[in-house]
Amino acid sequence: MDSGRFEKQLNFILEADKEKSIFRQTHLSDGSRRENDAEHAWHMAMMIYLLREYSNEEFDPAKAMMTALIHDIVEIDAGDTYAYDEENLKTQKEREAKAAERIFGLLPEDQARELRQLFDDFENFATPEARFARAMDNFQPLLLNDANNGGDWRAHKVRRSQVAGRQSATALGSEFIGRYSMGLVDKNAGIGNIIDDRE
Amino acid sequence: MDSGRFEKQLNFILEADKEKSIFRQTHLSDGSRRENDAEHAWHMAMMIYLLREYSNEEFDPAKAMMTALIHDIVEIDAGDTYAYDEENLKTQKEREAKAAERIFGLLPEDQARELRQLFDDFENFATPEARFARAMDNFQPLLLNDANNGGDWRAHKVRRSQVAGRQSATALGSEFIGRYSMGLVDKNAGIGNIIDDRE
Repeated sequence: MDSGRFEKQLNFILEADKEKSIFRQTHLSDGSRRENDAEHAWHMAMMIYLLREYSNEEFDPAKAMMTALIHDIVEIDAGDTYAYDEENLKTQKEREAKAAERIFGLLPEDQARELRQLFDDFENFATPEARFARAMDNFQPLLLNDANNGGDWRAHKVRRSQVAGRQSATALGSEFIGRYSMGLVDKNAGIGNIIDDRE
Repeated sequence: MDSGRFEKQLNFILEADKEKSIFRQTHLSDGSRRENDAEHAWHMAMMIYLLREYSNEEFDPAKAMMTALIHDIVEIDAGDTYAYDEENLKTQKEREAKAAERIFGLLPEDQARELRQLFDDFENFATPEARFARAMDNFQPLLLNDANNGGDWRAHKVRRSQVAGRQSATALGSEFIGRYSMGLVDKNAGIGNIIDDRE
């Protein structure tokens, strides 16, 4: 066994521990506190396994789950960018690419390349695994927001066009879940949790 | 599509959210706070994917990762039982079996059966997936404890025989990681983080 290889893998695994301290805007389903990147990724990976029958395309579940588990790891360096924060969204790509270079670079070369590929594919909706993982990345916070009575949407004065824009990408992974998501958006726009900005 | 089926899956997914509020004894690698079940499971699933080359046997990574993601879900009803809490360990099996019945029962029948099987296999070291997931269940907190200078071991006055007993099961999933773990145990016994109770 190559113990240098194992040490590199452990360095990455310990570095990843920092994701537990990166808090997102989304609150837990009971509204008690914001969730962190590790919790969000755990939830997404479970959803990929349980809901894969609704995917538009067949995919490799382990690859899609691993994509979910590491898709936010760049936020260790680049921070969390809220989905509707238009100012920070402008510099997000550049900050995250630099972080990906450093963090995946901790791994042995073959695994660094593999995870960087999963990360880039996720960013670019490039594979069936990435498309379904992206769908879960949208659907998971939608479910939590709906469960906690839209507190996050109300706090950020989120408009229907913003949520609907994001959820339209969900359908690239799953037409069925995309439609269900739009139903939740409409329900929450109807009760005033989301600002209805349709003409 | 069967919308009753989808609603059952969502009920389970929302129920699982409660794992984010179940805190373990183990602290994060920086020692700042205890980690919760969701974070622990996220870390384990990532480790299964990255370290699977060290497994004694070939296994299905998606199945092993899903096992990791849900292995603590019974604690929603049964609470976390610390690995070295001998009093609570006595009633753990019964409390957890009851919880498994209720929580997996939220899912459609085929998935309830499948996840219950993964959970039971994990408990019983019954498959290669379960054995490697168990190895990660031992190794992940060992890594964190070692990284945070053994604070959890010291707080609980943990003895070498207790940790070594638990880590001996790691070798059932991976001889290599089992040996590495024993090295970490010896190192921490050597510096007094773990009480050395060898004759």
